Amino acid sequence: MERTSFAAMSCSLARTLEMVGDWWSPLIVRDLFLGICRFDDLAEDLGISRNLLTRRLKLLVQNGIASKMLYQSRPARYEYELTAAGLDLVPALLALTAWGDRWTMLEDGTPMLFKHKSCGHRFQPKITCSECGAAIRSDAVAVLPGPGGKMGPGTRVVARKLKAV
Amino acid sequence: MERTSFAAMSCSLARTLEMVGDWWSPLIVRDLFLGICRFDDLAEDLGISRNLLTRRLKLLVQNGIASKMLYQSRPARYEYELTAAGLDLVPALLALTAWGDRWTMLEDGTPMLFKHKSCGHRFQPKITCSECGAAIRSDAVAVLPGPGGKMGPGTRVVARKLKAV
Repeated sequence: MERTSFAAMSCSLARTLEMVGDWWSPLIVRDLFLGICRFDDLAEDLGISRNLLTRRLKLLVQNGIASKMLYQSRPARYEYELTAAGLDLVPALLALTAWGDRWTMLEDGTPMLFKHKSCGHRFQPKITCSECGAAIRSDAVAVLPGPGGKMGPGTRVVARKLKAV
Repeated sequence: MERTSFAAMSCSLARTLEMVGDWWSPLIVRDLFLGICRFDDLAEDLGISRNLLTRRLKLLVQNGIASKMLYQSRPARYEYELTAAGLDLVPALLALTAWGDRWTMLEDGTPMLFKHKSCGHRFQPKITCSECGAAIRSDAVAVLPGPGGKMGPGTRVVARKLKAV
């Protein structure tokens, strides 16, 4: 099934999803972050078909999230690593993981714990305001039109609403 | 195309994706957050087919992300609003939006700006350590096995690696 592209949407969430929002892609980024970098290991870890994994990795490379390197030449074998953009995505994926810890019922408890090497403590990722440092709650956020906001697919009513602010 | 379910994976990111990771779903949550709550407005804003929007909204309600309320009875018309779990997802979506602002090229600049009503400033969502308050960088995060970590589909190699920590 061909999916609708979000690339032309005047919305940075839509553009993020266009680059890493495919089914499986965030889990591939997770694995690369965890040091599972070789094709065969990724295929085994995820239980994803090799065809689909090939397509997803190709897109992640095209989108500048991962890069591909030869680690063995006969036969040719590749491994993947996160780019700066890919690494910068990891904290947001940790935040989504913490949401899953909070809201999806896990009989046995949290599957993974995070430790902050800088301070030495186990931690939760906390989304805070860059200006005052307080935790961000959705009801404390107002949205204003930015310079790049346009009417268009994916943002028709949003753009109207923001204009009226 | 039937997608592989992530529901049984021993990974809170996978479980998050199972609940809100479908193509379109995060944009529907975005719109509900922005106050676009009625079926017709959502369909117009997103340019999504009415069939697909119906399916996605049904899943979001089933998964406890949104709730559905009658606002007009003849003919019956519904609006949707985010539940506590849905509202708690918003900061993580803001973090993904900020990633898109940083890494996807937008000719005209940021489409939307966020203002923190608590402090009155325009802000960026910043993912910080719950213990020391510093910004989280991916290279400062160590991952440890939690009580709910199990070998299994979606986490086979991860589970082995974590066991060996």
